[in-house]
Amino acid sequence: MSILFPKVDGLLHGGDYNPEQWLDREDILKEDIRMMKKAHINTVTLGVFSWSVYEPAEGEFHFEWLEKIMDSLYENGIYTVLATPTGARPAWLDARYPEAMRVTRDGVRNRHGLRHNHCMSSEKFREKAEIIIRELAGRLGGHPGLILWHISNELGGECCCPSCQERFREYLRKKFDGDIEKLNHAWWTTFWSHRFSDFDEIEAPMTNGEGSIGGLNLEWKRFNTWNMTDYMKFEIGLLKEITPDIPVTTNFMKTYPYLDYRVMAKELDIISWDSYPRFHNDYEELSDTFAENAFDHALMRSMSGDKPFMLMESAPGLVNWHPFNKLKRPGIHSLAGIQAVSCGSDTVQYFQWRKGRGSYEQYHGAVVDHLGRDDTRIFREVEKMGEELLAMKAAAGSRVKAEAALLFDWENRWALDDMAGASQEKKQYEKTCLLQYKSFLRMGVEMDIVSMNDDLSSYKVVAAPMLYLLKNGAAENLRSYVENGGRLIATYLTGYVDENTLCYLGGFPGDGLTELFGLYSEELDTLYPSDKNEAVFTDGTICSIRDFAEILKVKDADIVASYGMDFYAGTPAVTRKRSGMGEAWYIGARLDQAGMEKIYRTCLTEAGAAVMELPEGVEYRVRSDGEHDYAFYLNETDHEAALPDASGVDLLTGKRAEGLTLRAYEAAVLESDAL
Amino acid sequence: MSILFPKVDGLLHGGDYNPEQWLDREDILKEDIRMMKKAHINTVTLGVFSWSVYEPAEGEFHFEWLEKIMDSLYENGIYTVLATPTGARPAWLDARYPEAMRVTRDGVRNRHGLRHNHCMSSEKFREKAEIIIRELAGRLGGHPGLILWHISNELGGECCCPSCQERFREYLRKKFDGDIEKLNHAWWTTFWSHRFSDFDEIEAPMTNGEGSIGGLNLEWKRFNTWNMTDYMKFEIGLLKEITPDIPVTTNFMKTYPYLDYRVMAKELDIISWDSYPRFHNDYEELSDTFAENAFDHALMRSMSGDKPFMLMESAPGLVNWHPFNKLKRPGIHSLAGIQAVSCGSDTVQYFQWRKGRGSYEQYHGAVVDHLGRDDTRIFREVEKMGEELLAMKAAAGSRVKAEAALLFDWENRWALDDMAGASQEKKQYEKTCLLQYKSFLRMGVEMDIVSMNDDLSSYKVVAAPMLYLLKNGAAENLRSYVENGGRLIATYLTGYVDENTLCYLGGFPGDGLTELFGLYSEELDTLYPSDKNEAVFTDGTICSIRDFAEILKVKDADIVASYGMDFYAGTPAVTRKRSGMGEAWYIGARLDQAGMEKIYRTCLTEAGAAVMELPEGVEYRVRSDGEHDYAFYLNETDHEAALPDASGVDLLTGKRAEGLTLRAYEAAVLESDAL
Amino acid sequence: MSILFPKVDGLLHGGDYNPEQWLDREDILKEDIRMMKKAHINTVTLGVFSWSVYEPAEGEFHFEWLEKIMDSLYENGIYTVLATPTGARPAWLDARYPEAMRVTRDGVRNRHGLRHNHCMSSEKFREKAEIIIRELAGRLGGHPGLILWHISNELGGECCCPSCQERFREYLRKKFDGDIEKLNHAWWTTFWSHRFSDFDEIEAPMTNGEGSIGGLNLEWKRFNTWNMTDYMKFEIGLLKEITPDIPVTTNFMKTYPYLDYRVMAKELDIISWDSYPRFHNDYEELSDTFAENAFDHALMRSMSGDKPFMLMESAPGLVNWHPFNKLKRPGIHSLAGIQAVSCGSDTVQYFQWRKGRGSYEQYHGAVVDHLGRDDTRIFREVEKMGEELLAMKAAAGSRVKAEAALLFDWENRWALDDMAGASQEKKQYEKTCLLQYKSFLRMGVEMDIVSMNDDLSSYKVVAAPMLYLLKNGAAENLRSYVENGGRLIATYLTGYVDENTLCYLGGFPGDGLTELFGLYSEELDTLYPSDKNEAVFTDGTICSIRDFAEILKVKDADIVASYGMDFYAGTPAVTRKRSGMGEAWYIGARLDQAGMEKIYRTCLTEAGAAVMELPEGVEYRVRSDGEHDYAFYLNETDHEAALPDASGVDLLTGKRAEGLTLRAYEAAVLESDAL
Repeated sequence: MSILFPKVDGLLHGGDYNPEQWLDREDILKEDIRMMKKAHINTVTLGVFSWSVYEPAEGEFHFEWLEKIMDSLYENGIYTVLATPTGARPAWLDARYPEAMRVTRDGVRNRHGLRHNHCMSSEKFREKAEIIIRELAGRLGGHPGLILWHISNELGGECCCPSCQERFREYLRKKFDGDIEKLNHAWWTTFWSHRFSDFDEIEAPMTNGEGSIGGLNLEWKRFNTWNMTDYMKFEIGLLKEITPDIPVTTNFMKTYPYLDYRVMAKELDIISWDSYPRFHNDYEELSDTFAENAFDHALMRSMSGDKPFMLMESAPGLVNWHPFNKLKRPGIHSLAGIQAVSCGSDTVQYFQWRKGRGSYEQYHGAVVDHLGRDDTRIFREVEKMGEELLAMKAAAGSRVKAEAALLFDWENRWALDDMAGASQEKKQYEKTCLLQYKSFLRMGVEMDIVSMNDDLSSYKVVAAPMLYLLKNGAAENLRSYVENGGRLIATYLTGYVDENTLCYLGGFPGDGLTELFGLYSEELDTLYPSDKNEAVFTDGTICSIRDFAEILKVKDADIVASYGMDFYAGTPAVTRKRSGMGEAWYIGARLDQAGMEKIYRTCLTEAGAAVMELPEGVEYRVRSDGEHDYAFYLNETDHEAALPDASGVDLLTGKRAEGLTLRAYEAAVLESDAL
Repeated sequence: MSILFPKVDGLLHGGDYNPEQWLDREDILKEDIRMMKKAHINTVTLGVFSWSVYEPAEGEFHFEWLEKIMDSLYENGIYTVLATPTGARPAWLDARYPEAMRVTRDGVRNRHGLRHNHCMSSEKFREKAEIIIRELAGRLGGHPGLILWHISNELGGECCCPSCQERFREYLRKKFDGDIEKLNHAWWTTFWSHRFSDFDEIEAPMTNGEGSIGGLNLEWKRFNTWNMTDYMKFEIGLLKEITPDIPVTTNFMKTYPYLDYRVMAKELDIISWDSYPRFHNDYEELSDTFAENAFDHALMRSMSGDKPFMLMESAPGLVNWHPFNKLKRPGIHSLAGIQAVSCGSDTVQYFQWRKGRGSYEQYHGAVVDHLGRDDTRIFREVEKMGEELLAMKAAAGSRVKAEAALLFDWENRWALDDMAGASQEKKQYEKTCLLQYKSFLRMGVEMDIVSMNDDLSSYKVVAAPMLYLLKNGAAENLRSYVENGGRLIATYLTGYVDENTLCYLGGFPGDGLTELFGLYSEELDTLYPSDKNEAVFTDGTICSIRDFAEILKVKDADIVASYGMDFYAGTPAVTRKRSGMGEAWYIGARLDQAGMEKIYRTCLTEAGAAVMELPEGVEYRVRSDGEHDYAFYLNETDHEAALPDASGVDLLTGKRAEGLTLRAYEAAVLESDAL
Repeated sequence: MSILFPKVDGLLHGGDYNPEQWLDREDILKEDIRMMKKAHINTVTLGVFSWSVYEPAEGEFHFEWLEKIMDSLYENGIYTVLATPTGARPAWLDARYPEAMRVTRDGVRNRHGLRHNHCMSSEKFREKAEIIIRELAGRLGGHPGLILWHISNELGGECCCPSCQERFREYLRKKFDGDIEKLNHAWWTTFWSHRFSDFDEIEAPMTNGEGSIGGLNLEWKRFNTWNMTDYMKFEIGLLKEITPDIPVTTNFMKTYPYLDYRVMAKELDIISWDSYPRFHNDYEELSDTFAENAFDHALMRSMSGDKPFMLMESAPGLVNWHPFNKLKRPGIHSLAGIQAVSCGSDTVQYFQWRKGRGSYEQYHGAVVDHLGRDDTRIFREVEKMGEELLAMKAAAGSRVKAEAALLFDWENRWALDDMAGASQEKKQYEKTCLLQYKSFLRMGVEMDIVSMNDDLSSYKVVAAPMLYLLKNGAAENLRSYVENGGRLIATYLTGYVDENTLCYLGGFPGDGLTELFGLYSEELDTLYPSDKNEAVFTDGTICSIRDFAEILKVKDADIVASYGMDFYAGTPAVTRKRSGMGEAWYIGARLDQAGMEKIYRTCLTEAGAAVMELPEGVEYRVRSDGEHDYAFYLNETDHEAALPDASGVDLLTGKRAEGLTLRAYEAAVLESDAL
C-alpha cells in the first residue's frame, strides 16, 4: 500500500493549466478557480512550455506570476505539479545558440520551432537548462502546494548532430572495450566489406549512409535511450539537489517506439503517461479500444513496482490530431477514468484545463471551452468524474495483482522491425502482443507487461510472443522460470538472434532453448495475405493460420497440433514439453485468436488461475490493499450486461450489490474483504 | 457594356504562338498564317518564355524576328498579345546570378530549370527583368498590332530565401506596428513557449522549422501574395511608364491555392485565366466537369467588375499532364468555348497554336499537330469555333447578371486547411463551395463568387459555406446584408477564428454572429467515413449527414430540421432567424445535396429569385447588354434535351426559336429584348 | 558449340562463398568442403565484397587466407570465380577520400555505407581500385583453380557529383561537335526559354533543377551507361593486362532500368545474371512467374551471341528482401534450375553457400543454414540439382534457337517513361513486352530479345511493341527486314520521336515508316481505367481494348480489324501491308491477350514457324548442338501434364520416352537427333 501524495487526500483530479496565456485576463484566472472547485479539481500541472515567459530574454527572469497562481490555487485546495520548462525552447535561445538544436538523420540541423528540438548532448543547452531549472526550483521548490516535479514533457526523438555522434562513438568504445574487432565480430561487418578499422569511422545510421548493419541500427537505438536518459538524469540531478523530497516523473507515451521506457523508468520516482485512445473509430469495437488502453496502463503499472502510476494527460472531449476527431460519447469519459484507476492509476488528469485561443492545439479538448461555460456537456462529465474519484478514494494506494505476464521488450521490437526477412508488413510485433493481452483480458485474467529479464516467478503463465532477440541471460531466466513451475508460451520467431542481432548457430530457438522446447525450427514460411494454412489439434479442433509458419523438427516435445495443409501438412505446429515443475509451449505459426485462446485457457486452467466467463465487452480487474479488494467491472457496450456473480459494496453508488446489471457504458467498483 | 479591345471586332479567337521555335522554317511560318486565317484566328499571344531568344547572351538583344512576325500577323488581320518574358529565365542568367533563383521550404536553393524559379524579392532579378522589359516595350510597345500586355506567365509558387525572409520580417514589423508583443498576442505564442523576443527571430514556416503557429502560417501566405503582387506591380509599372494606353493582364489558374487572386486582380486591367478541365473522366458526369469550369469562370468574372474577362488558355485537343490524357470528344471543344462566353469571357484562346517538337509539352494539344495538316478533327473543330465566335459577336461586351453569390475566400481556405482539428481529410473547403455552386446552377441561378468583405447588396441569396475565419468587418458586412433584406446561409464551422486565427471567446459563430443566427455551437462532432447521421425537417423530409455535425444551443432561431440519430438526436440541426428585413440560416451539419438544395430552393423562392426547371445536364445563364439578353443553353449530355420555354433568335443558327430541342452536346444562344 | 570453361566438365554448380566471415572457425571451413562435395558443387565465387579483409588498413594487404581457401577448393575439385572487390568500399577509404562517394540527384554526397557508392568518375577511387585489383590479380591470377573474373558486383546506380557532371559536359561537347546550337535544336530548348548559351551551363537533371527537357533526361541516362561502362572497362583493362586468358563477366540484374546492358555486354566475355523470381505469389500463376524469368534468361542469352550465359546468382530457398519471403515449394528449385539450362545457361549458381550470422542478408536463402545441417529440405534439393546438372551435362555448350524476336530497347524504355503525355501509369512498356513474350511462349515459340538496330534476318516474326523512339537507322533496319521477307508487328505509340526525342513531323510512325505500314496516326486516345473499346476483326471476332487507341488514317494497308465503339467506331484498328517479300502489321490499340495471340498465330503460321499446342502451364524450348536436340518440357502446374508427341531419351532419367506424362512440377529433357 503506497499513497502517492500524502498531502492530497485520495485520488488526483486535474490537468495541465496554462494561466500564462491569460495573464492579461484577471477575470478568466478568477473564473478558473471557481470552475476548478466546481469540477472537484485538486491538482494542476503548471509550467509545461513556460520557458519563454519565465525568461523572455536571456538572463531576465519572471516567476512572480507563477508564485501568485500557485498561491491562489493552494489557498483553494489545489496542489501543483510543476514542470521543468525544457519541452520547448525560447526563440532567443535557438537564435543565439543554434548548436543546441537537433540534427535529423538527413544530416540537416533543424530550425527553431515545434517542441522537442534540443540536442541531448549539447553542453550549451544543458548550461541554459540548468540556469532556468535552478531559478525555477530555487524560487518555487519550497512552495507548500508543490507535490511533484514533471521533467520536461513527452521526451522523445533523437539527434544526429556531430556531438551526439561523437558521444555514440564513446559509448561504443566503452561497450566494446575499445576493441574494434569485438565490434566487427558482433556486427558481422565482414559482410558487404563493412569492417571498421577504427571507432572514428562509425556514424549513426543516417538516411544517406549506413543502414544495413543490424547491430549498428540496434545499438544506435540503445544509445538514443541512453543519451535521453542521461539528459533526463541531468535534470533530475539538479532538482534532487535543490528539493530532495519532491518526487519526479516524466510523462510517457504508450509504447513509444523510439525509447526503451524501462531504462528511463529506473530513474523516476513515479511513472506517468498520456492516454489518447481513438474511441468510436471505424476499425474496431469500443471494447478493443479500451483493451489497448488497458494494455498501455498495464505497461505503466508494470514499470511502477509497488506504486500506483499516474494518468498524467487525457482528453476531456476530443483531441485535435487524430485523422477524425470524433466526440467522446456521453459516459465514455467516466468509463475511461474508472478504467485508469482499475489498472492502477491514482490520478485522472487532463490536457488541458482551458483551451488556448491560438496555435497548434487550440482545438485540443479541454475542461473549459472557448465558450467559457460550466454547463457544457464536457464540463458536466468532468464534474461527474470528480465526484466519482472522490467516491473511489478508498482504492487509492492499492495494487493490481496479475496472475499472468506478457513479455514485451523494446529491444526485441527494434530488432524485429529491423530484421530484413519474413515480411516487413506482417511482423506486427506490437499488435501481436496486444492481441495476446486481449485474449487474457476476455478471460478476466490481468497481465503485467514485463521484460524478458524480469523476475517472472510470481506469474502462473507467461506469454512470450515473437521473442526474436534474446538478451544476455534471457534464455536462462526463461528456463529457470519453467523449471520452477512456470508455464511459458513461446511462438514462431523465437530466439533467432543474440543481443547484437547475430543469428544463433545450430538451431532456433537459440541459446539453449531448443532443449527447453524439445525442438528446432528448420524453416520459416512467410505467407502472402491471401495464403492460409490451418492447425489441427489432437482433439480435432481446427484453427486457421496466417502470415507465418515454422517447419519444426521435434525431438522430445508433445505435439498439440499439426499443420493441416501445404507441403508441411502433418508436421507439428504446436507443442508442449514438461521441464522441471513447469511446461514450455511452442506455437510454430500465427494462429487465429480462437486457437491462441484455446491454448491460453488450457494453460491457465492447468496452472490454477481463475478464468472467468465475462459478458462480451465487459472488462474486469481487481485492486487490493491487502485488506479490501476493489473489483472493477466496466461495461464497454451499448447494451446492458448482467454479472450475476458480482458482489460487494459499489463505491460509486454506496450500495451493496449481489449480482450486477450494468447499463450501457456503466461501471461498478465493488469493495469486499480481500481474498 | 464594355468592349475589351475596340480594335478587335467582337470576340477574340487565338492562342499562344511560338514562332521562335521555327525561325529556321520559313515554310512553316508562312503556313501558320494561312492556317490561322482559315481557323478565324484574330489574336495570338507572343513572347511567353522568349527571353533566351530575345537575349541569348547577357546584354545582346534580338527583336527583329518578333517585329517581322508581328508585322506579318498584323498585315493579315491578326492582333498580338505580348508577354513579358519573365516566366522563365535564360540559363546564363541563373549561371551568373544564382541568387535570383528561389529557395524552397527545405531551405535549399533551386538549380536552373523548369519555369517559375525567380525570387520575387531579388534585386538582381528585377534589374535584369527591367532591362529586358524596357528593351521589349521600347521596341514593340508602339506596334499597331499590340493590344495587351501579358505579365510573365501563370505567376505562382513562393520563395524562402534570406531576402524573402527579411522582407517578411519587414512586412510583419509594419503590420504589427513594430511591437513584438502585438504579434505574440495575435499568434498566441505563449503556447508551447513560442514567444518571440524580437522580429529578427521570426522565420518562414520552413519544413524543418516552425510549422505549428496558425497565425504565422497564415501570415506567410498573405505575405507571399503581397510579395508576388509587389513583383507583378514592378513589371506593370515599367509597362505603364512606356505604354500607358496598353492594358495589362496576367493569366490566373483556377482557384490556385497559393495566391489570393483578389489581391492581384486589383492591379490588373483585365482578368484572364487558363482552363484545362478533365473532360470525360471516370469520377463524375460530364456536366459536373462543366460545372466546375463554370465555377472557375464565375470566379474570374466576379473579379472583373463590369468588364468581360478572357479565357487566355485552353486545350484544343487534350493536355499532356493529366493522369489520363483522353481526347476531348467531338463537339466538346465548341461547347466549352460557348460556355466560356456564356460565363462572361469575350475570348477563346488556346495553348497552343502549334505543337513544338520537343521538351516537356511536345504532346500538349494544339491547333496544329506535328502532322501539320488542316484536315484533322481538331483543326476542324477549332475552325468551327472560330465561326461560332463570329456568330456570337453581338454578345461581346455584355455582362452576366447573378442573383446569388457564394462566399469563397482564400484566407478562409488557408486557415481552414491549416486548422489542426476536425478532420484534415474531410474539410474539403473548395469541393464544398463547388457543390453549392452546382446546386444553384441546376436551378438555373447563376452565382457570383465573392469575398466576405465584398458588397453583397445586389444578391438575393448569399451562401457562405464553412466561413471559418472572419476578416475584420466581415461579421458586420454579413449582419448588414441580412438586415437590409438579404438571405444569408451559413454552415457548421462558421466564425471560429478572427483574422489572426485566434478563436473567438464566448461562442461560435463569433464576432457577434451568435446574435445574428440566434444560437451558438457547443461542440463539433467529426464523423468517421462510415458514420452517418440524418436531419429530420419539420415537414418530415429526411436527408443524410456525413463528416461534420455541430451540437447547437438555440436562443431565438426557428428550428428547420433536427438531428435524427446519435446522442444529440432531437437537437437542432438547421435553423433560420429573421433579422431586420432579411434572414440568417444556419446549417449545423454537412447535409447531402438534396438537403442543401431543399434549403436553397426555399430561400431563393422566398427571395423572389427565378428558379428554373432545367433538364438534367443542361446549363443555362444569361448575358445582357441592357438592350438585349443573350440566353445560353448548353446540353452537356449525350442525348437530346427539350427546352419548351426557350425563345429568341439563336445566334449560332440565325433562326428564331420558340422552344428548343438540343442535340447531344449542342448549344444555343438565344437573343431577345432585355427584360 | 561453345563450352564456357573447358576446365570444368559440363555444367557449373555453385555459388557465392564467403569464407572470410568464418576465418576463426576452421571447423566450419572444413565442413564447407565436405558439404560442397556432397552437393556436387564444382565452382564457387570468392571475393565479392572482400576489400576490407584484403586491405584492412590502407596499403596493408592480406591474401594468404584466400590462397589457402582456393587451394583447398581446388584440391577438392572445386573451381573459383574471383570477383574484384569494388562492390563495396572499406570504411577507411570513405573516411579518407570522401570525394570517392556518390552524390545523389538531390546534390547531396552520400555517407559511408551500403554497397554501390563509388563515383565512377573519381580519379581517387580508380587509383585505389587499381591498387587492390593489381594486388589481387598479381597474387591469385595464376591460380590453377581460377576460371573467371567477376567484375565488381551488380553494377548500378548513378552519380551526380561535380566530376561526373563535368564528364557529362565533355560527353555532350563531343556528341554535339562542340556546337551548342546543335544541342539547342536537338533538345528543342527554345521551348520554355531553355536555350543554353554554353555547354558549361548544362547540369544533370537534378531533383531541384532541370527535369523538363526530354533530350537532356535521355542523354543523362545514356551518359550514365557510358560512364559505368567506362569504369567497368577500366577494371577489365587491368585484368586483361595481368591475366589475358581469364575471361571476364559482371552480373546483370534482369531488365535493370538504369543501365543499357547491351552497351556493357559488348565489353564482357561472358554474360551472367542474378535471378530472384517471386514464386508462389498472390498476383499471378506460377507459370507466369516462370515466364517472366524465361524472358530475362532470353534477354541474357540474346546478348551472349553464340555462347551460353551464366545464371550467376539464385536463391536456394528464399530471399530476404521481397515483401513476402515465402519458401520455394518442393521441386521448384530443380524446375527453375532446369529452366535456366533450357534457356541457354550453362550454370546454376547461388547466392549464397552459407548464411552469414549478421547484417542485412542474414536471412537470405543459402545452401547451408544457420542450423548447419546437410539433411535440411533445402540442402537435399540443392544436392538433387547437382545430380540433375550432371545428368544434363551433354547439353553444355549447345544453343537455343529462336524463330521469333521481340524488340526491347532501353533507350525506347527511357524515352517512353519520360514521355509527358498519354498516361504515366498506363504506359507499362516492360510489362507489355513481357506479355508479348508470354504469348509466343504459350505457342511453343521461343523469342530472342533484341534491339531495334540488331540484325533481324534470322527471325520469321518480329514483335515490336510501343517502339516509340527510333534510333538512327532503326526505321531502315525494319523496312529492310520486311522487304526481305520478315513479318513485323508494330503497335500504337510507334515512331513518335527520333533519338533526341524530337517528334517526327508529317505523321507517326515517322522516319518513313508511314510508307511501310501504309497509314498515319492522327490522334492517340488515352482511356481511363474504366473506359473500354473493342476491335472487331473482319472474321467477326471481337476483342477488348484498354488504355490506348490510335485513330488511324490508312492509305494503302489492309484492314484486319476496326474499332467497335466510341466516336471512332468503324475506323481501322489493326492493319497489314505487304512490302517486298514480307509484311508490316500495325496494331493501333492495346488489345487484350486473345486479340494479340490471334494476330501472332496468324503471322507465325503464315511465316511457317512451328506453332505448338502445349498444355496450359507447360514451358517448352529446345537447345541444340547441331548434332543433338535437347527438348526441355517444364510442367509448372500442380497437376499432371500429358505430352503425347514428346519423344527422345530423357537425360534426367536416362530412359527413352515416346509420349510423356509429367508429374506436378516435373521436367524432362529429351535428347534426340538434331532436326
